[in-house]
Amino acid sequence: MFIGGMRAPLLRESSQVEEEEEGEVEVLHSEEEARHRGHPPVGILGSGDFSRSLSARLLASGHRALVGSRDPSRLPRGLFPQGAELVSQREAAEGADRVVFAALFPEHYHSLADLRDVLAGKVLVDVSNADGLGCGAEGSNAQRLARMFPQSHVVKGFNVVSAWALQTGAHDGNRQVLICGDCPDSKAAVVQLAHRMGFTPVDLGCLGASRAIEEAPLRAFPSWRGPILTTVLLFLFLYGYSFMKGVLFPYLEHGRNNFYQLPLETVNETLTAVAMVTLALVYLPGLLAAGLQLSRGTKYRRFPSWLDCWLGGRKQLGLLSFLCAVLHAVYSMCLSIRKAAKYSLLNAAYRQVKADIPDSWVEQSVWRSDLYLTCGILGLGVLALLAITSLPSVGNSLNWREFTFVQSGLGYAALTLVVMHTLFFGWDMAFSPGSYSYYLPPLFVLALVLPCVVLVGRVLLAPPCLASRLAKIRRGWESKRPRPPPKDQEVGITDRVIADG
Amino acid sequence: MFIGGMRAPLLRESSQVEEEEEGEVEVLHSEEEARHRGHPPVGILGSGDFSRSLSARLLASGHRALVGSRDPSRLPRGLFPQGAELVSQREAAEGADRVVFAALFPEHYHSLADLRDVLAGKVLVDVSNADGLGCGAEGSNAQRLARMFPQSHVVKGFNVVSAWALQTGAHDGNRQVLICGDCPDSKAAVVQLAHRMGFTPVDLGCLGASRAIEEAPLRAFPSWRGPILTTVLLFLFLYGYSFMKGVLFPYLEHGRNNFYQLPLETVNETLTAVAMVTLALVYLPGLLAAGLQLSRGTKYRRFPSWLDCWLGGRKQLGLLSFLCAVLHAVYSMCLSIRKAAKYSLLNAAYRQVKADIPDSWVEQSVWRSDLYLTCGILGLGVLALLAITSLPSVGNSLNWREFTFVQSGLGYAALTLVVMHTLFFGWDMAFSPGSYSYYLPPLFVLALVLPCVVLVGRVLLAPPCLASRLAKIRRGWESKRPRPPPKDQEVGITDRVIADG
Amino acid sequence: MFIGGMRAPLLRESSQVEEEEEGEVEVLHSEEEARHRGHPPVGILGSGDFSRSLSARLLASGHRALVGSRDPSRLPRGLFPQGAELVSQREAAEGADRVVFAALFPEHYHSLADLRDVLAGKVLVDVSNADGLGCGAEGSNAQRLARMFPQSHVVKGFNVVSAWALQTGAHDGNRQVLICGDCPDSKAAVVQLAHRMGFTPVDLGCLGASRAIEEAPLRAFPSWRGPILTTVLLFLFLYGYSFMKGVLFPYLEHGRNNFYQLPLETVNETLTAVAMVTLALVYLPGLLAAGLQLSRGTKYRRFPSWLDCWLGGRKQLGLLSFLCAVLHAVYSMCLSIRKAAKYSLLNAAYRQVKADIPDSWVEQSVWRSDLYLTCGILGLGVLALLAITSLPSVGNSLNWREFTFVQSGLGYAALTLVVMHTLFFGWDMAFSPGSYSYYLPPLFVLALVLPCVVLVGRVLLAPPCLASRLAKIRRGWESKRPRPPPKDQEVGITDRVIADG
Repeated sequence: MFIGGMRAPLLRESSQVEEEEEGEVEVLHSEEEARHRGHPPVGILGSGDFSRSLSARLLASGHRALVGSRDPSRLPRGLFPQGAELVSQREAAEGADRVVFAALFPEHYHSLADLRDVLAGKVLVDVSNADGLGCGAEGSNAQRLARMFPQSHVVKGFNVVSAWALQTGAHDGNRQVLICGDCPDSKAAVVQLAHRMGFTPVDLGCLGASRAIEEAPLRAFPSWRGPILTTVLLFLFLYGYSFMKGVLFPYLEHGRNNFYQLPLETVNETLTAVAMVTLALVYLPGLLAAGLQLSRGTKYRRFPSWLDCWLGGRKQLGLLSFLCAVLHAVYSMCLSIRKAAKYSLLNAAYRQVKADIPDSWVEQSVWRSDLYLTCGILGLGVLALLAITSLPSVGNSLNWREFTFVQSGLGYAALTLVVMHTLFFGWDMAFSPGSYSYYLPPLFVLALVLPCVVLVGRVLLAPPCLASRLAKIRRGWESKRPRPPPKDQEVGITDRVIADG
Repeated sequence: MFIGGMRAPLLRESSQVEEEEEGEVEVLHSEEEARHRGHPPVGILGSGDFSRSLSARLLASGHRALVGSRDPSRLPRGLFPQGAELVSQREAAEGADRVVFAALFPEHYHSLADLRDVLAGKVLVDVSNADGLGCGAEGSNAQRLARMFPQSHVVKGFNVVSAWALQTGAHDGNRQVLICGDCPDSKAAVVQLAHRMGFTPVDLGCLGASRAIEEAPLRAFPSWRGPILTTVLLFLFLYGYSFMKGVLFPYLEHGRNNFYQLPLETVNETLTAVAMVTLALVYLPGLLAAGLQLSRGTKYRRFPSWLDCWLGGRKQLGLLSFLCAVLHAVYSMCLSIRKAAKYSLLNAAYRQVKADIPDSWVEQSVWRSDLYLTCGILGLGVLALLAITSLPSVGNSLNWREFTFVQSGLGYAALTLVVMHTLFFGWDMAFSPGSYSYYLPPLFVLALVLPCVVLVGRVLLAPPCLASRLAKIRRGWESKRPRPPPKDQEVGITDRVIADG
Repeated sequence: MFIGGMRAPLLRESSQVEEEEEGEVEVLHSEEEARHRGHPPVGILGSGDFSRSLSARLLASGHRALVGSRDPSRLPRGLFPQGAELVSQREAAEGADRVVFAALFPEHYHSLADLRDVLAGKVLVDVSNADGLGCGAEGSNAQRLARMFPQSHVVKGFNVVSAWALQTGAHDGNRQVLICGDCPDSKAAVVQLAHRMGFTPVDLGCLGASRAIEEAPLRAFPSWRGPILTTVLLFLFLYGYSFMKGVLFPYLEHGRNNFYQLPLETVNETLTAVAMVTLALVYLPGLLAAGLQLSRGTKYRRFPSWLDCWLGGRKQLGLLSFLCAVLHAVYSMCLSIRKAAKYSLLNAAYRQVKADIPDSWVEQSVWRSDLYLTCGILGLGVLALLAITSLPSVGNSLNWREFTFVQSGLGYAALTLVVMHTLFFGWDMAFSPGSYSYYLPPLFVLALVLPCVVLVGRVLLAPPCLASRLAKIRRGWESKRPRPPPKDQEVGITDRVIADG
């Protein structure tokens, strides 16, 4: 970034102390300058795919790339980009101005032992991934490298970048490069390099964080595991419940064959219930956290870890709830193109004609069906707005107040609409004893419990006396001061609650 | 960003003038260098939540953080991140290399008066938010601070960042930091700091812009207010119209009970009309602007402010139109799962059997319904493409020509399809006197007026003579030169018209 | 970025060699410093729209802007932002610290010939667009400029930025600025300038790339052309096939009038087939590439160019397939609100009553319709997840493993579900001779061929012996070493296959 415009006058100023000649010398001088000012040579130890792509990227960013191999004469020249300098490992380490990449597998690190002298004082970038999840006895690869080269400054980074991203640059969006290291100065050099190569470096602190960085590319959706597991288990339980009550028991008792409902109707019914319960699960932990803060009278005490974990999974739970709600909507809209719907209708027409009823219109039924459809559609619409604002590019353009309005205000609106959707749907069934066959309540009654609990809890927190006390606590007020400062405290998590009240 | 790689040789060069020793001195020297080159200590005045989060972020980015409190001995050590140095306010201001954050409420700024001497020449960053919207007599907080410390360089910034974002870094996307200030040099220091902390600084110019920055976090969707209000009023008016014509008057006159239509059918009908009118409102101001430019013969005269405002709200109007269109589509697809649909069908079957009509097929009806469904679906599809390209991450990847094609070309295609959808839907009703009961035209005729006006206007601008003249004007050509240069002119707004013609 | 914080002590250190005075001199000194350290003056040759917007942006970023015109006295002062200095072209070029923008049309470049002496050693930024696609004999505008000013350093850039984006800054997202040039040092100066103006510079290498940059704003969706053409041709062919088999031949032979199916039913049927075939086309080239790599025993040989091209268009094909699938879903959900559906149902009811069949339920039909709907809905849901992860802001937040899981794992899951959807739909029809009227197989049989081929191909590659050999090859292993290093090799393309295997 820096370099060009500003450096020249400065350098000239300081060198004018010695020499006053102009003209011919000027040109020589600029060449000298260019060497100093131009992007410095970078060393790469190793000659695999990553090394090749890295050298191409470095060259494109205006650096010299010294690729160090144990036997440079045997390297296939054609595989490396034009301009890359294929040298011995020692030459690469020596020639590098400051930054040297260790682009080899961790199990070959010992082969670098001879270079300890030339690597002293240099910044050694460890680009390796972890072999597997779970910390080994020796710590991370980067920490092992740092122990091997105590006189070099080891910086972890670039491992989350693929060889492909290196070659194409960050042309198609922001590619983040996670970086950590113990020496701020060395880290800054790597940060600068990453910037110049078109990446967005993110500093994660000291080398202790390197294990997490090494494991990052191995983790598949770590934040989604819990929420997906919860949703799937919920689905299986409710599907089983629905199967037993609606299909199995009627078959066993009356020999009624409802098995045709399994692929679509039972799935659809279950999806509604899952969507409602997971949506309630999004807002329940916020209420629990608020209750804890109110009873403790301070926000400066950690929540139990299960609550932290739950609070952290709310976005994922919300998106899964939206997914289920959309599937439920699509299923419902397909109900009328099913053969089953056609046959039912034809048979009903036959019966109506045979019974000679000219008009089968039931005003109350019509109202109920239209009301629950409207509530459902509007609820889905609000959930869709929530889902859209959870897209990174949209969410990042919102300020704090807008984000809170969307996530908390619209979220509770969606929950209310969804509860109304279900109430209108099941109102008369809920109070007819026939719906409680086999001593089991209908599925929708089961699904309503948690959402209603959340709505009641929200209403209980609404009176001004509680709300203002909570707001005070969240601004840092404490009910009983002074208190001994807690020892091992992380403020981060508790603050998160403020986000969605 | 800069620092590491290039600084070292430079510094060495200039100091070699004095000393030629190597070895032992070298090491001492690098330590000295490190102190200078390493990220410099940053001061923070105040010890609240923001101060805590800020110090954590600064430490993670390799800075020293000097947290200045009026009474550092009473600070709860455990609440601050390890490594933060808790000192007096004076020590924090003195110890800071250059940048000092004023992380206290604006009403406590007077408590800093004693520090005027140590803050002289430093960069003082005002991170406060406005108390409310609407400029006070004293200007912004930052301007007040600048008056209090005339010898410091006040830079506004970081107020749009929440404590939570500070702690987690910009890990989940780009977080913009709005910055302004009068001293370019000081601003550059803050810009650099923001970059290093993982944020994306956006320079908004001189300190006069600070009020807008202070108010930014208070505004909730400022650009959405007008368009949402327009859409809601339009909906209420058209819903009322539809209610009167379709439900109230038939009830009053013939006692016909159509009230069951209110929750779903009337809403659905109204949504279509609202979607069409708002879509027309997206393209009308562009036509008006083009007309104005043509009649004025220049693009260098400002539009009236209502037109500027309208031009600025087109994206929002378009998205609201899309929202209404999607709701209309979902409502329509739910029409056949309503109880009302079932009862109507059964009664129709009864009547058909009783009247003994073996085939009720009406070829023209079938064609009409299929054609309007197809037009509607395709129109919705095109609108969906428009909505997707208005996502920041998608829109930013388009070049100018692509953006124009999508917004203008596809936009008019959508409008045409939507008009055809409505024409096919209401063609025969539009000309039957029965549809004009109570001297009121049907809703869809009302909704067609504005879209047709826009389409006709677009066609009128299409002939080459007008189109090429308009293109010339937009490239800067003026029909009557020379003309007196206007005095207080903003080119920005007029240029925007070029975007969507 | 850099500048502020760190420069001051350094400069002071070097100048303390000469002078030891403090106090009064200090102040003078800082002014001198500020001039050097502050953002340097930038020259702009030309006075059109781009020049105006550029000067505004430069001023907002803290630079001085020297706008050079052939006749500065005739410039309308009011059109330029306050602070812009309107001077002669020579003064602008001389006054610029380092960077000079050539903001005039390429056909006027010759008017700069006189400035050759003052532009020597400066960085000359060419911001022009190409006149048309297809390389002229003289190469790019930037290359022509470089030949005209051999002593200046020409850098291409900023042409992809519109005047509007320049004025508003990159406030609404990341705006990339493509840059190229032969002198790394000069390029770095422009990169730095772009950063400071709030843009994201992307370095595309040496000046040879300038033609591509100049043509970038002219290209409309270059990567979409092939995939869209393929999809449209496929649609036309299959629509024609469907028209002949379902409408034309029955009419010619039996006089049956099925023309009403054309606008909706035939389109819907065709869309399903197109969605399936294009989805198969997304995964076919990956299989072909894997087969090639297996048979060649190395990944270090280029694929034929048609395969490269096909591999590069997979994302677009996938999104078009998703678009068709969504349209098909919406069409299908609208099937039951068609008049045709109503009339068919009424006639069926009439026939059932007349034939006196109390129950027309067909268990197998019910199962089949529910199963194919379920498979279709789930397949569409999986495709939707794929489409969402192809949004830049979402895709960029995935790591390599997650991306592979989504694109390859979920992709094949979607393909399987879609094939099952079609199999359940057409199972009994597929084997009834009546479906093969006019010796033509039904459309869905035709559409199943390619997806089934892909699924079979995937299964053939699954056995461990082949899969592990392929994995080895993709990690760089080669079956026959040593081999002569190929001469003109591009590694980039072959690597891409790894992404989705």
